[in-house]
Amino acid sequence: MSTAPYNIIGTRPPRHDGADKVTGRAIYGADFQINGLLHGAVLRSPHAHARIESVDTSRAAAYPGVVAIVTADDFPQTPDRIVDLGEGETPLSYVRGNVLAKGKVLYQGHAVAAVAATSPHAAEQAAKLIDVRYTPLPCVLTAPEGMAPGASKLHEQENVTHHIQHAIGDADAAFQQAAIVVEREFHTATVHQGYIEPHAATALWNNDGRVQIWCSTQGSFVVRDVVSCLLDLPVSQVKVTPTEIGGGFGGKIPVYIEPVAALLSRRSGRPVRIVMNRRDVFEGSGPTPGSFIRVKLGADAEGRFIAARAHLAYEAGAYPGGMVGPGTMCVFAAYDIPNVAIDGYDVLVNKPSTAAYRAPGATNAAFATESVVDELARQLKIDPLELRLRNASREGTRRADGPKFRRIGCVEVLEAMKAHPHYSAPLGAASHAAAKRGRGTAIGYWFNIGLPSSCVISVNADGTVNLIEGSTDIGGTRTSIAMQAAEVLGIPVADVHPAVVDTDTIGYTGVTGGSRTTYATGWAAHDAAKDVIRLMTERAAKIWQADDVQFANGIFRSGNNQLTFAELAAKLTETGGPVVGQASVNPKAAGGSFAGVIADVEVDVETGKVTILRFTSIQDAGRAIHPSYVEGQMQGGSVQGIGWALNEEYWMSPDGRMVNSTLLDYRMPTILDVPPIDTQIVEVPNPAHPFGVRGVGEANIVPPPAALANAIHDALGIRMSRLPMNPPSIVAELAKQ
Amino acid sequence: MSTAPYNIIGTRPPRHDGADKVTGRAIYGADFQINGLLHGAVLRSPHAHARIESVDTSRAAAYPGVVAIVTADDFPQTPDRIVDLGEGETPLSYVRGNVLAKGKVLYQGHAVAAVAATSPHAAEQAAKLIDVRYTPLPCVLTAPEGMAPGASKLHEQENVTHHIQHAIGDADAAFQQAAIVVEREFHTATVHQGYIEPHAATALWNNDGRVQIWCSTQGSFVVRDVVSCLLDLPVSQVKVTPTEIGGGFGGKIPVYIEPVAALLSRRSGRPVRIVMNRRDVFEGSGPTPGSFIRVKLGADAEGRFIAARAHLAYEAGAYPGGMVGPGTMCVFAAYDIPNVAIDGYDVLVNKPSTAAYRAPGATNAAFATESVVDELARQLKIDPLELRLRNASREGTRRADGPKFRRIGCVEVLEAMKAHPHYSAPLGAASHAAAKRGRGTAIGYWFNIGLPSSCVISVNADGTVNLIEGSTDIGGTRTSIAMQAAEVLGIPVADVHPAVVDTDTIGYTGVTGGSRTTYATGWAAHDAAKDVIRLMTERAAKIWQADDVQFANGIFRSGNNQLTFAELAAKLTETGGPVVGQASVNPKAAGGSFAGVIADVEVDVETGKVTILRFTSIQDAGRAIHPSYVEGQMQGGSVQGIGWALNEEYWMSPDGRMVNSTLLDYRMPTILDVPPIDTQIVEVPNPAHPFGVRGVGEANIVPPPAALANAIHDALGIRMSRLPMNPPSIVAELAKQ
Repeated sequence: MSTAPYNIIGTRPPRHDGADKVTGRAIYGADFQINGLLHGAVLRSPHAHARIESVDTSRAAAYPGVVAIVTADDFPQTPDRIVDLGEGETPLSYVRGNVLAKGKVLYQGHAVAAVAATSPHAAEQAAKLIDVRYTPLPCVLTAPEGMAPGASKLHEQENVTHHIQHAIGDADAAFQQAAIVVEREFHTATVHQGYIEPHAATALWNNDGRVQIWCSTQGSFVVRDVVSCLLDLPVSQVKVTPTEIGGGFGGKIPVYIEPVAALLSRRSGRPVRIVMNRRDVFEGSGPTPGSFIRVKLGADAEGRFIAARAHLAYEAGAYPGGMVGPGTMCVFAAYDIPNVAIDGYDVLVNKPSTAAYRAPGATNAAFATESVVDELARQLKIDPLELRLRNASREGTRRADGPKFRRIGCVEVLEAMKAHPHYSAPLGAASHAAAKRGRGTAIGYWFNIGLPSSCVISVNADGTVNLIEGSTDIGGTRTSIAMQAAEVLGIPVADVHPAVVDTDTIGYTGVTGGSRTTYATGWAAHDAAKDVIRLMTERAAKIWQADDVQFANGIFRSGNNQLTFAELAAKLTETGGPVVGQASVNPKAAGGSFAGVIADVEVDVETGKVTILRFTSIQDAGRAIHPSYVEGQMQGGSVQGIGWALNEEYWMSPDGRMVNSTLLDYRMPTILDVPPIDTQIVEVPNPAHPFGVRGVGEANIVPPPAALANAIHDALGIRMSRLPMNPPSIVAELAKQ
Repeated sequence: MSTAPYNIIGTRPPRHDGADKVTGRAIYGADFQINGLLHGAVLRSPHAHARIESVDTSRAAAYPGVVAIVTADDFPQTPDRIVDLGEGETPLSYVRGNVLAKGKVLYQGHAVAAVAATSPHAAEQAAKLIDVRYTPLPCVLTAPEGMAPGASKLHEQENVTHHIQHAIGDADAAFQQAAIVVEREFHTATVHQGYIEPHAATALWNNDGRVQIWCSTQGSFVVRDVVSCLLDLPVSQVKVTPTEIGGGFGGKIPVYIEPVAALLSRRSGRPVRIVMNRRDVFEGSGPTPGSFIRVKLGADAEGRFIAARAHLAYEAGAYPGGMVGPGTMCVFAAYDIPNVAIDGYDVLVNKPSTAAYRAPGATNAAFATESVVDELARQLKIDPLELRLRNASREGTRRADGPKFRRIGCVEVLEAMKAHPHYSAPLGAASHAAAKRGRGTAIGYWFNIGLPSSCVISVNADGTVNLIEGSTDIGGTRTSIAMQAAEVLGIPVADVHPAVVDTDTIGYTGVTGGSRTTYATGWAAHDAAKDVIRLMTERAAKIWQADDVQFANGIFRSGNNQLTFAELAAKLTETGGPVVGQASVNPKAAGGSFAGVIADVEVDVETGKVTILRFTSIQDAGRAIHPSYVEGQMQGGSVQGIGWALNEEYWMSPDGRMVNSTLLDYRMPTILDVPPIDTQIVEVPNPAHPFGVRGVGEANIVPPPAALANAIHDALGIRMSRLPMNPPSIVAELAKQ
């Protein structure tokens, strides 16, 4: 790692919030306390698709302890209009309708009404007493079903809400020239982010008209935007305080219960808390889409990719705005291909409205592309990493969706994979006669995002600083942000006290998502620290009556005068008062990140069980601010990728009910399912960021399913085309042979 | 009022925190909730002066529910040194000793030990089981007693801890030249600020070594400074969150229970809350000093004051650092006298360490001076306001304590008093035969202070702004600060959302005291708003590609282009991200304020009861940002001045026990005791402040006792020389005639 120029960047200090988190002191969504609290419960639809004929709340209202009941009619009935709440333009009625159904329910678990009562039990019991009469309607559950002629429609509009097309060159003509063409179809399952903490929110509609929200969210300002929009309030009438968050992975960007709690608070005049249970989370929050993908790739005799075509049909869930867009951006992003045609379809189905999930849409796409690349390599008898290197995207490569790559680390990641001891290590003998071993590789891309961030740094008299920012800390970003400030200030990172504050206290800050927090909020911290140094330089100049004060390595100097940061910090009051630096950014030049996986598996051919023997994740971090956190992201993304490669799926009954909505039945990997995951950080600094940071939270989930599919193929000679690749599906595939 | 140039300044908008306060939602010190909370109780000394022979906590420790017990030995035993924690230099051992007594108790109510238990009752019961063996010592209870030869000493040092001397000219020689000399002696009682909310604090010594405090305080950063000093931690290891505060008046600047709660938290590993009761407040917190004052004033035949001498002996209480210093600065501040000699004595007595109380020290002094001035006026047969005008301080007048007055409003206040209809209105006939009526006047001065303040303003997309600051809001300062920002930003004050935040979130901000908050934090808000306009002007320039953008009256303009503040606010994200302005100040040029009172009384000569018939308070506000709040301060100061004029006093037994430590026996004025108080704001802008603000919180308490004494003299012909002027003392004085 090229951390030579830095004192703090690249080190591994303890996290500032560590003690609170390991001692149980951190306040998560459901922990928040406030006097007079009522408890909310949400009544959810048992049907995947039905007309709501009537809602009778009288029995519920009579239940002891019930204070308020709300339905969709309690929202301000502002006329429908197109709004952009941070996830693209969409009708207001859709945003509102997903929070509380109106007229129709569109998925099992769709919220219909809510109750506030003096105890959680009373609220739950009363919710069950709300009489809703439904007329069930036919449902569609997959993208191909939704696209089929005559399919049942969820809304007035067609089920295909967006058809995205990207093209460069002439793919059809180029395929004619190809020495070899492989075309395959793939299916991926609907999977959930599976964050450990269910959604939890408390709302207080105050007597002064302002609404306060305390909740577990990836973006307090997004909650502010959505809640103010749905309640028809100016954004400044809503104050959102983010609690600690027990994971999100994209699934805690959408807003579900916050506006409902607010409506209940307005009705009751008291604060109301709603806490989801796991079933609510599975059925009432947004999973990532299942998909159907067809990928066709043509190469010349030397293995040079000359043509590519992709058809991506992704489930949108019950409302438009699914994850197919990023899928189309990432499906061929790793390769420099002159002729490409991509069609992406966002398809309404009777499942929860889909949400982001760690590089949303890219994992599905990479499963397809990287399986096809692997097959091409085998047919061409070229080492699969060599084949990828021969075609790898690099600075200047133009993507089919438009942009030209700036400096990226695709080649460096592939070279690191090739050079890694894992890649050349022997696979070893299978553990028993019915077992076979194989090795697979794959790479993946995620573009990362910018968005606004704000940071304010106040200097304490003891030479430390307090840093406030608005990015929910999911993966240690308090510390990775503090480190960037400390680097500039020339002080130990323990001397920076970072705090995540509410929306009244800091400038607009985008979501913790898109791998942007260390990148963008860290950038704001860097700039705010520079602002502090500028102001302190002025103070030193005042003290010394000098105009040539320089700051370097934590020391202010002019001639023979010098003061350390801490020494000058002690003199601020007398020289003009406190020093507070601030900066806001809205960077556009997020640096995309490539990640690669080498995976060894052993498959039991009798049971179809896949055991992962060795797993290596390699990723370009740009600059690894805190390598442990980068490694943690790589391991976390790997485990999740393994989960949806091998086990995870929404198991739906034909009438659209999820039949495995518990963590016992929805099979996420446990510590027994995954081996230790080796990591190797590649650093190809992002030239647009002051420290070279790229986002590292997402690209790592992209390659695992493809790498495992390729490893299974290596072991068994079968090409799995459907996720999850669980034992029954492997046994079934083997049976076809 | 000269508010013509302003849109917001001088208006009377609703307060931002009003709804929370009238609906009971505001969180005061005792309301704060946190999981795992323990309750603390403090054991206090029953003796005014005693040696602590032994402390045995074993019985208390065995009491059910007790989790921790602490004494002074639990403080880090750092060597004694001189510290300055915002109230002048003092030995660390004194600060520590006042929080928990070590070796000796110095006043009844002195904290000796504390218990944390699972319920408040258990903590109180257990505290009583701590066995402390005392050897009582002789006590001194007044300043003259403390100064007497052979008086019992509280500390190693002499009871007179400071002898302050100010002089200009040659007072002795000048008295020889005087046509008339009046010299009188006065006594004032120890009185308490009587804030409605007793002290309350919660502390959590966290596992990461940081201490968090939530408390009712006038200065969160002072609490941070004191707690960190006593616990031997860097200031940044302590985070103080100020709750709402139910009054302070200076009495919530000192720190009492916060370090004790922190020690109990360290011992118990849990958060600990301590809440004082009213008796604790009277006996264990700092009242303002009783005093003995001798004032001698000489005038020439035309009533021109040519010589003045004052002897001020103030109770320090149990530790040095009493309020005599400001007394010496204010005693003759209203008058331009060429020859002055002032001696001030800070005298240790066995009462609680005194604290600031609204213009601390000045009310005592003005009672003396203004009584003597009134007597001179009568002897010279000059109208008392005319006599004062003839001698009034004005710009350029040098005070005996050194500084030369900048632009002040002493003359303007006196002229407003003279012109006020009250001054020429007939007194009316007494209500019964045994009643007599009289009118009195007096003026008073308070210098006000500066100190650091910090402010950060973030712009919302809806054209509003969020403003954070660190000044506890006692008298509506959220709004008076927000108004100054709104004036600069050209937006309605309701569009500024002010919040008082914790010490981790804002730059160092001094106490809400010294009438500084609207002045200094308002100044920071003004500057931060200017910073916002600077940044937004840059954005407008970027949008229009123009370098001539001007901002006026809420509109940015360049050529034919224009954008309102709100319109531009909606365009910030796309033009570079959030706009956040900040400013910090540490102003030295606080503008002193003069206040005058005209009071009519009727005295029942049989009972001695004084009924106030009419009361007019007139004060120079510099610039009245929010006139209602200025009037509120004037009325509040008047009521408190009436209280210590007529009724309030610490009634002490000879062995130093307070015998009236309840609000039933310590007789504060109720609504039945005071008439409506008329106010008239004078505005002589402070040239050093961007809006001309002076402080208005204090000068108004200074004249009432003297004005009432002068009114009583006018009614009865007796000169009251001792506060309070309660019925028995008036009857006694009448009996002497």
